[in-house]
Amino acid sequence: MRTVDPAKHAAKRRQIMQAAALCFADKGFHGTRTADICARAGMSPGNVFHYFPSKHAIIVALIEQEGADTAAYLADLADAEDPLAALFDLIDAVVRLAADPAYAGLTLDTAAEARRDEGIGTLVADNDRRLRAGIADLLRRAAAAGRIDDALDPDGAATWVAAQIDGLFARVATDPDFAPLDQAPMLRLLLARFLGARDT
Amino acid sequence: MRTVDPAKHAAKRRQIMQAAALCFADKGFHGTRTADICARAGMSPGNVFHYFPSKHAIIVALIEQEGADTAAYLADLADAEDPLAALFDLIDAVVRLAADPAYAGLTLDTAAEARRDEGIGTLVADNDRRLRAGIADLLRRAAAAGRIDDALDPDGAATWVAAQIDGLFARVATDPDFAPLDQAPMLRLLLARFLGARDT
Repeated sequence: MRTVDPAKHAAKRRQIMQAAALCFADKGFHGTRTADICARAGMSPGNVFHYFPSKHAIIVALIEQEGADTAAYLADLADAEDPLAALFDLIDAVVRLAADPAYAGLTLDTAAEARRDEGIGTLVADNDRRLRAGIADLLRRAAAAGRIDDALDPDGAATWVAAQIDGLFARVATDPDFAPLDQAPMLRLLLARFLGARDT
Repeated sequence: MRTVDPAKHAAKRRQIMQAAALCFADKGFHGTRTADICARAGMSPGNVFHYFPSKHAIIVALIEQEGADTAAYLADLADAEDPLAALFDLIDAVVRLAADPAYAGLTLDTAAEARRDEGIGTLVADNDRRLRAGIADLLRRAAAAGRIDDALDPDGAATWVAAQIDGLFARVATDPDFAPLDQAPMLRLLLARFLGARDT
């Protein structure tokens, strides 16, 4: 009887997901054929299909991985001594991701796909809800520490911090001259003023 | 010899574009078949094809119309006595558009399509460039009138005002509980603080 080694199974899945992410970065979700992913992963179609029944299933796994990565990042920030500095660290990390054409392309393709596929839309909304909750926690703690305007509703303000992140990626998509790393100071200024930040 | 009446030709094109926009609002770009547009316009496929060779050509015409509408709106604002009030009027108008599910859907479908179709991407980037130029003009005049922080670079700040508009639509797409009209006060506060607005 053949048994499945869970660690090996997970490693194979990761190998396929990484290959797919590289293909998606080059050609987008729609331009990528399953055969491209197999070639990049160095695996036969039969072998890939053993782990993922379809290209769609790989996209779903990538979005779930993104959600898990964000959750782990936010869990780390929850222990940060300075919640306002932690928020700006988060924003800096997002700016670096937006400056990576492969990552930005994958994020924008995912947003586009969420328009056309309800299952992907639900996953994206779940990831977003967790991100906003993490940001709202940081804002609540920053307000309690007197570092930002405590008259701002933390959940409402977190929604607009999330909107800045959306806007950042949308600018990358729309404006060929928009360079995220160059824009970081203006984004920090905008957020500091909006939040009424002190001593940043 | 059959002659073409330009006014009648333009009216027919508008009729098809309006029918298409309603179909797109219901079913999205990809869910809409050319037959749906013909049925909604009350025209035969042959008649529709006389005005537009493809569904893609109708989408292009709608984006060009959007650009022309925005340009006309911005040209009106250029004469406004109070440039800061004019900017906030523009933002209120955008919030009302974002609150219209048909308009928001069309905008988000267009952004998604711009990822996959270079021609549409170029049109969207052109419309965006004109929008940012119009906003930058308002900011320049508002700074000269002492209504906003004159240390802010108007073009750089206009980029982030445009990012708020992107973020607004992205929130509609991602968060089922996001209600644009309810969010207008927070967006106004964010922009007023970012711009260092006085006497709004």
